[in-house]
Amino acid sequence: MTEPAFIAVDWGTSSFRLWMLDRDGKPLAERRSGEGMTTAASSGFAAILQSHLDAIAAPADLPVLICGMAGARQGWIEAGYIDLPASVSGIAAGAVRIAGESRDIRILPGLAQRRAADPDVIRGEETQLLGALSAFSGGDHVVCMPGTHSKWVHVSGDTVDGFSTFMTGELFDVITRHSILSHAVAGSETIDDAGFADAAVDAYAAPAMVTNLLFRARAGQLLHGLSADAAKSQLSGTLIGVEIAGALSHAKKGAVVRLVASGRLQHLYETAFRRLAIDFTTIDADDAVRKGLFAAARTIWPLTQETQA
Amino acid sequence: MTEPAFIAVDWGTSSFRLWMLDRDGKPLAERRSGEGMTTAASSGFAAILQSHLDAIAAPADLPVLICGMAGARQGWIEAGYIDLPASVSGIAAGAVRIAGESRDIRILPGLAQRRAADPDVIRGEETQLLGALSAFSGGDHVVCMPGTHSKWVHVSGDTVDGFSTFMTGELFDVITRHSILSHAVAGSETIDDAGFADAAVDAYAAPAMVTNLLFRARAGQLLHGLSADAAKSQLSGTLIGVEIAGALSHAKKGAVVRLVASGRLQHLYETAFRRLAIDFTTIDADDAVRKGLFAAARTIWPLTQETQA
Repeated sequence: MTEPAFIAVDWGTSSFRLWMLDRDGKPLAERRSGEGMTTAASSGFAAILQSHLDAIAAPADLPVLICGMAGARQGWIEAGYIDLPASVSGIAAGAVRIAGESRDIRILPGLAQRRAADPDVIRGEETQLLGALSAFSGGDHVVCMPGTHSKWVHVSGDTVDGFSTFMTGELFDVITRHSILSHAVAGSETIDDAGFADAAVDAYAAPAMVTNLLFRARAGQLLHGLSADAAKSQLSGTLIGVEIAGALSHAKKGAVVRLVASGRLQHLYETAFRRLAIDFTTIDADDAVRKGLFAAARTIWPLTQETQA
Repeated sequence: MTEPAFIAVDWGTSSFRLWMLDRDGKPLAERRSGEGMTTAASSGFAAILQSHLDAIAAPADLPVLICGMAGARQGWIEAGYIDLPASVSGIAAGAVRIAGESRDIRILPGLAQRRAADPDVIRGEETQLLGALSAFSGGDHVVCMPGTHSKWVHVSGDTVDGFSTFMTGELFDVITRHSILSHAVAGSETIDDAGFADAAVDAYAAPAMVTNLLFRARAGQLLHGLSADAAKSQLSGTLIGVEIAGALSHAKKGAVVRLVASGRLQHLYETAFRRLAIDFTTIDADDAVRKGLFAAARTIWPLTQETQA
């Protein structure tokens, strides 16, 4: 077995993922748990991290690099933001070290778009971006990172020019749980690709109708006995279709869409892109964040690597 | 005092309003309460109605005409829907009489747009529409009825050609109560006209960006210390701006916007229309439903009026 070189941690609002990596970025051990920022804020960031390091018997001098909400104001330590336009490879330089720990533990900063007209922030996705862009050499990219708060990032070469957050995932959640549409989707188990894609097309074509398109799930149930699965597919397709329409309205001509996703969201966005005839390539989101953490760690601790080799 | 001729009731999901009208439609007595369909479904529609009739000493033979959710499937009796295209003055003919009551009590039907492409329903607004249109002689109108579920109705002369429901009010409610944006608006007391109108303009101009525009309330708070009032104004303006953009994209050229509203919503929609340079006239929503109930009652019980005169 090769020697471990770094610990990489993606610490989100509700999830924790840790990898022990060798000097080439190969994972030697992995941990996943639901101990996200929300849990850690009460039970302690240091204790949670240490329990996972103990579980994989991580050497005491191995440095740890963290990205995500652990660096938010409500997190372990505020890692701040790098302002746009920002160099993706430059985020490593903004890492903030946790004081009072014998181990070298650092958290990567987020990115901030401070323009008064469209203020926006990213935290965690900048590291995914660093990993995702390692696959390409220059050029203009529109990087789509779907989720609770989907991020669309406009990149030229190594530079982030701008980005937009769309509340797609969270809106889907609050609408299906707390609005009158909760009745229309009650008991739904699966999203139907065809219904989802039809709704995405409708919303993409007429985004101004979005709050009406959502209501049609209820009217369709009242008048045509629309099933819960069909209603849920319609709501999901509507919100994702509007997101794509909005995001691409800001894309540079000729920029290629890079989808950074995995699992269920990867499938939905790929289905929508295909149906809308939008060219894209997919990068696995888990790979992207691990590669991004590795690339930043190599920049921060170049000698550590030599020492351990 | 003139003789009472009819009882008119607007029975919504969460509100109850009753007027005793004379043969010219003049209100002789009025009752308002929170005993909407939700309350009545458990404590009984007949008992609630009778308690209000007793309170104003309504004669035992006075007929009662009801509109709204009391006619829904979960209401007192299902009054069904009239399919489009529908004559506004024809809704009276669809009234359904409550069986087993010595008093003549009828509930007006809603309207249904059954087209598979954009199914939609209205219940209660058809009666407001009847009252609102009494002010105009023919022509094309786009009637805007803001609320929890805003309705935009396209009318030519006496005929309803189509309508669209926008979930504006309910979305505003679930977003400000259940999403991450609840933090951005916490403690907000008032909506600021200027911030509201700016947001309406932005959303009207770029409706595809709606779920991003909503998120800017949070990003603005994180990066620029946006106040709770400003955040709430921005959310309200964004949702109303998108609604107006969507609704007008379906309007006939030359159709005049008729706003049927009162109170806070009247002020917000008027502010948005003015800022967007959209011509409109306003009709008071309370007046409209009372006049609509009166017009339908006169059609249903023409002899009653004569008898009582």
